[in-house]
Parts: sequence; C-alpha cells; structure tokens
Amino acid sequence: MKEITASVITVGTEILFGLILDTNSQFISNALTGIGVRVVLKSSVGDERKKILEMLKYASTKSTLVLITGGLGPTNDDITKKCLSEFFDSPLQMNPGALEEVSAYFAKRGIPLTEINRKQAEMPQLARMITNEMGTAPGMWLEKNGRVFISMPGVPHEMHHMLMTRVIPDIRGKYQTPVIQHKLIMTAGIGESWLAERISGWEKNLPGHISLAYLPGYGQVKLRLTGTSDDAGALQAELNEISNDLGKIIPEYIYGADGLTLEERIGQILTVRQENISLAESCTGGYIGHLLTTVPGSSRYFTGGLIAYHNDIKTGQLAVSEVTLLKYGAVSEETVREMAAGCRKLFNTHYAIATSGIAGPSGGSPEKPVGTIWMAVADESGTVTRKIIIPKDRINTIRYASVASLILFWQRISQKTGTAT
Amino acid sequence: MKEITASVITVGTEILFGLILDTNSQFISNALTGIGVRVVLKSSVGDERKKILEMLKYASTKSTLVLITGGLGPTNDDITKKCLSEFFDSPLQMNPGALEEVSAYFAKRGIPLTEINRKQAEMPQLARMITNEMGTAPGMWLEKNGRVFISMPGVPHEMHHMLMTRVIPDIRGKYQTPVIQHKLIMTAGIGESWLAERISGWEKNLPGHISLAYLPGYGQVKLRLTGTSDDAGALQAELNEISNDLGKIIPEYIYGADGLTLEERIGQILTVRQENISLAESCTGGYIGHLLTTVPGSSRYFTGGLIAYHNDIKTGQLAVSEVTLLKYGAVSEETVREMAAGCRKLFNTHYAIATSGIAGPSGGSPEKPVGTIWMAVADESGTVTRKIIIPKDRINTIRYASVASLILFWQRISQKTGTAT
Repeated sequence: MKEITASVITVGTEILFGLILDTNSQFISNALTGIGVRVVLKSSVGDERKKILEMLKYASTKSTLVLITGGLGPTNDDITKKCLSEFFDSPLQMNPGALEEVSAYFAKRGIPLTEINRKQAEMPQLARMITNEMGTAPGMWLEKNGRVFISMPGVPHEMHHMLMTRVIPDIRGKYQTPVIQHKLIMTAGIGESWLAERISGWEKNLPGHISLAYLPGYGQVKLRLTGTSDDAGALQAELNEISNDLGKIIPEYIYGADGLTLEERIGQILTVRQENISLAESCTGGYIGHLLTTVPGSSRYFTGGLIAYHNDIKTGQLAVSEVTLLKYGAVSEETVREMAAGCRKLFNTHYAIATSGIAGPSGGSPEKPVGTIWMAVADESGTVTRKIIIPKDRINTIRYASVASLILFWQRISQKTGTAT
Repeated sequence: MKEITASVITVGTEILFGLILDTNSQFISNALTGIGVRVVLKSSVGDERKKILEMLKYASTKSTLVLITGGLGPTNDDITKKCLSEFFDSPLQMNPGALEEVSAYFAKRGIPLTEINRKQAEMPQLARMITNEMGTAPGMWLEKNGRVFISMPGVPHEMHHMLMTRVIPDIRGKYQTPVIQHKLIMTAGIGESWLAERISGWEKNLPGHISLAYLPGYGQVKLRLTGTSDDAGALQAELNEISNDLGKIIPEYIYGADGLTLEERIGQILTVRQENISLAESCTGGYIGHLLTTVPGSSRYFTGGLIAYHNDIKTGQLAVSEVTLLKYGAVSEETVREMAAGCRKLFNTHYAIATSGIAGPSGGSPEKPVGTIWMAVADESGTVTRKIIIPKDRINTIRYASVASLILFWQRISQKTGTAT
C-alpha cells in the first residue's frame, strides 16, 4: 500500500504577525493522521501573491496532497483563489453550482446578494467546487499531474465542517490508506496523573500496534486508543475488548465513549428517567446553562435557570436566608446548599445545581482565595456539596467550575463515588 | 533602511501528527513583529534528517533570519543539531561554555550529569552558544553568508525565556530594524462585505506603507491597520489620524479600539452611567450571561438573569401572557417583547435583554425556519426588537445570537442606528 503524504498550508498575514494562533493546521493534521495520511509539511504564508505561489510550488514537490486554508474571503486582501488560478494556469470563471449555493445562503437569510459576494462563486476553470454549509466561501478541489490541491476557508468552524463532511470522505474515496482506528474513552472526575497511575498496569499490557494518548480537558480526560492494522474488523474487536478491560478497572470515572460529552451523557440519563433539572448560577454566570443547551433536545429535561449574580436574587427568588448570607457569606457551603434547594423549589424540578464562588481576578481573601468555588446538587433525598479551588484566570475558572458542577451532578445521579476533580 | 525578514521553523513529528498545537511559532512571530522584523514564512517539519535539511535550505533563500525551535533534546529522535552541523559543514564539538552551563544546571539540582546530557553541550564549531536558563539544552546562533540561523529548544517556557532575554536583544543589536505598528478598530453590527463596500473609498486612499486587514468574528469585524516607517512617532500619529477619518465614515459601527471586546465596552458604558442590566434568555441558554460575566467587575452592573427554557417560566416568572404564547408562539416578536419587559420588572434593572429562537437542528417550520432568532431590549422608554436568521449549526447559532443581542443592546444604549448584523 502506497503511503499518501500531505502538506498543510495556512494563508494569512495575521498568522505571520503572530496576531492569531493557527489552530487550523493542527485540526487538519489530526484528521489526516486519522485516515492514515502522513503530513510531511506545515507552513504559513502571508497574503502575498509571490509568497503563495512559491509555497504552492514548494509543497507540490513534497507531497501528493496540498491542503490550503484561508484567503477565500470577499475582500481585497484575500487572494488565494487568484494564486491558484495562476499556479494552475486556469482562468477564474463563475462556477454555476457555487453561485447557486452562495445565492441560496443569502436568500435563506433574506439578505440581497452583493456583487462582492457574487464574486465568491468564481473559481479556476478546472476546480471542482466543495460545498460550504457554514459560510459564503466555497472550497475548491484541483488536480494536476497526480497532485491534489484542496482549498478551504480559514474561518475555523467553516473549515472544520467542510473538512470532516466533504474533504476527508473524498480523500478516502480516492486513495486506499491503511486502516487506522481510534477508540475514545471518556472519563470525568479524575486528573491526568492520578488516572495514569491507576491504569498503568493496563497501559503496559497494550499490544505494540495500539497506542494510548491522554487528552486532558476541564476536569475530564479523554483516553484515545489508536490502532493500525490491515484487518478493520479484527482491529475494532480488539479495541473494544481493551476498552472493556479498562471499564472494569475504573468504572467510577468512565461516563461514555467515542466523543460523547458529559452534558450529552447527562441528557441521556435524564431523558430515560423522564426527569428534569434547573440551575442557580452565581459565579458561573450562565455557562452551565450554555453547556446543557448545546445538546439538541435539551429542552426536554432542562427547565431553566437563574443567574443569581446579585445577592438580592439569592435572597429574593431563591429564598436563601439573610442570616446565612451574613454569617457565612455568599461563597459558602451553607449558601449554595440553600440556593440549590430554593432553585429546585422555584423551578419545580427533580434536580437543581447551584454554584457560588470567586472567579477573580479580585475579591479574594486569605480564608477564601480567588478561585474558591462552592457547588451543590439538590434532589428529593437531600443536597450534596463540594468545594474546589481553581488557580486559573477568570474565564478558565468559570468554565472549569461549570464542568466540575456537572461532574458532581453526574456522580450524584449515576451513584458514582469518585471525588477528585 | 533595509527590511529584515525572518522564517520560523518548528521541528517535531508530533506537530505534523496534529498531536500538539504549535504555539511557539506564534510567540516568535509576535516578538519579531514587535521589533520590526517581518516574518515571511512559518513552517513545521518532522524529526527527519532529509526534511530538516530541505527546509533549512528553503528558508535560507526566503529570509535573512531563520529561527528554529525543537529537536535539541537528549534523545535519539532529536536531530536538529546534527542537521545544522551538516548544513553548515561544521563538525560537532564540545562547547566549553555550554558544558559549564549544563553542568551547573545539574549541580544546582543535586543531580549527577549523565553522558546523554553531557552531549547536549556539543554544537557545530561555528555556533555561538545561547544560554538556556530554564533547561538543559543550550541554544545556538550560527552565521554564514549574511544569513543568521538561531536554534532554540522546543519546550515553550524555555524558548520564551531564551527568545526574550537573549535572542531578541541580539537581533536588535545587530540590525537597525524599521518600526512596525498596528492599530485595531473594533466594529459591530455590519458584515465584512458590507463594511468593505462602505469604506472602499477610505481604503483606496491608504498610503502605500499602511495596509488593512479584515478580521471577522461573530457579528463583528476587527479592522487592523499595519504601518511601516522609520519614525515611530510620526507613524503613530498617522495611524491615529487615519482611524479617526474612518470614525467619521462609519461612526455607527465602531465601538472601540485595540482589542476591546463588545462586552467590555458595554461594561464601560453601564459603569459610567451607574446603570444595570438583566437577562431573559431562552434559545441562548445562558451564553449572554457568560459573555457579560467574563468581564472582571461585571457584578457592578449585571444583576442577574433568567434562563427561560421552558414556556412555564416565560409565563410564570416573566409574566408573558398565555394569549401571546398561544397566538404568536414562543419564537415571536410579541413574546420577546413581553419577556424583556417582564425581565426588567422582575430584576428591577434599567435594561433587560430577551431572546427566543430555534437553535435547531430540529423544531423549525416553513414560517420559522431553524436559526430564526427574536431578540428584544427593554428600557424605561420602551422596547426595541430584531429578528435574525442564522444558518449555522446549533452551537454557533447560540453564540452568534448571543453576540447579536449584545450588539442590539449596544446600539440601543449608545444611540447607534445600524441595523445589519
């Protein structure tokens, strides 16, 4: 089986200035590696004709595939398309399919198509259009002398969608690549190093053709098993068996597999039980609500929430006693306990989560430093609480605290006994 | 003054696999831009002799400076030094200064120097050692035929320290570099292509040494002016004048400068006026609250919010009439109008923002397709509403709708008349 190689080129002067972090090329490399394509070069060039042309030429000598992002916007500084036209000696012309899709995009939004956007449907004659479902700049697939050039927009969510739904399937359709399979095991409530210690015996026994990576996130670690083989069926069975073995070692930390998010898992559990939940968010400011509502169909079990930023709302709508607030303060076990109970009553739900903490950068004290977060989960049988201290910046503290609250909730409803976050 | 150009090369197979995100090259580019060196190329290659040599050769034809990170570790897969030795035809030999520093590093930690670490003090004969205060791999400065190659470790904090304390000062000492300055103008409420049309006359009149880039985000476009000159003071004055001119052309879309976020701008306005705000979020599910509370000190003006996901909360706590819900539906101008008014009353605030929409992927109808969002802003004098249709996936619809609501609010409180989003 012939190895397929790829170069990844990101276009944009702002990348060379260091004004933005190029995350696109990592995303693309990861996806290509996942289908057995070997990335041999990553490069960024500015929005300059000469530099882009030089790089197209260089990359075409290094790999079979050349994937390019950026420079497809409607403004004058976006010149990738012109460069591809020149490089392939293939004049720009209106692509009827692309024009149709750009027009439909605008029609759907009820906005007239401007001349500048109409031009986004122009592409080199030999290019095949790649649909952009997320924006107005179509992608392009160009082939010449056994080399394939794929041009995608630089806006990350547009590129991600186009890559995963169009480009990767088309590459797989064109080339026979060795079988590489991944299996993700989703854990929550245990840190990376503790997890590594707990599963070191299992890790040591992994066969040579299967590797393990730890992908840590907020309070969660994804374990990725990657196997290579010529036999897809046998590899899949092997990966399943190995992940089942792990399930017996750390059942209390595994909530799912294959990219399931914790908020999706929570949604599954609540949907099956026909139960619902409400939120009383102080320091997390609405972010737990955001996490829950990213899941389609969350309206079935998420009734609503109160962002109780000001103390008046804690005492008023959540019925936290003024004595509690005075005696223990807003950031205390007693307060979150009453918030959760009050929230459950206010929204008339089976469960309620409450948070209160100091997100910083100011507002801390020796007893309650910045990053101190109290959280509570109330249900019919009572309320559980947890305190964590998060030594991060404001935004990361808010996001970490939100995930930690969901972990506490998941542990509660699934009777898990883990406590580390 | 001659322009100094640079290439940035990061070495490491794990980057090409997409297993790690390359943040080093952004850091280096940013630092070089700051001293007026123009980065013309960024590239990543794997730990392979042939690929590294090819890239060294390519980069040496593209720029005066070549900065390299990675591949200086003590293990077998680290071969950058060998490649530099081969590229410069300069044999590896023990560098006494480097050996002294590596030995001191180990002595300080009470760890015996191993043979493998001793070898880290070897470098090509013509290399000048660059001290690494943060680790065991010294950097190298090599010059030949007017080109300078600088090799640094790949561990980010080691590289950062070496770059800022040694490399940048040495580059400034060697070259007189021109001044490069940026000016960011933050706009909201107008899309990239409409903005480009509105300011095309101004853009055409920009002098040759000042360039413009459009950096689009959700409902917002940052305009970045970049100027090059020998005279820092004159350039700054010129950039200010040009951005003031723009302010006269599109005053209704500019909310600030130099990286200010819209939620920070809103916070500034509310703080000065000593006014406060509350939220009634349906489809946005808490994300507007999250945006507002990312700003330190937001508790001064953000009282709280209600995530009104279930209709019972709209009718109960927000006092939306059941007749309105039945007649017009939850996603309607009438409903968000009543939600905003009810929210303002419930929280007793000067302003309230309300949202209701269909984030999808299901729940749409011909009259109200997925992505239909109604938003309202209520204040003492009444309520303004706006409808937008966002053809994105669920998460991006939620986030876009949240920003669009803040734009409507900003336009309202600052008496801006823009309407496009």
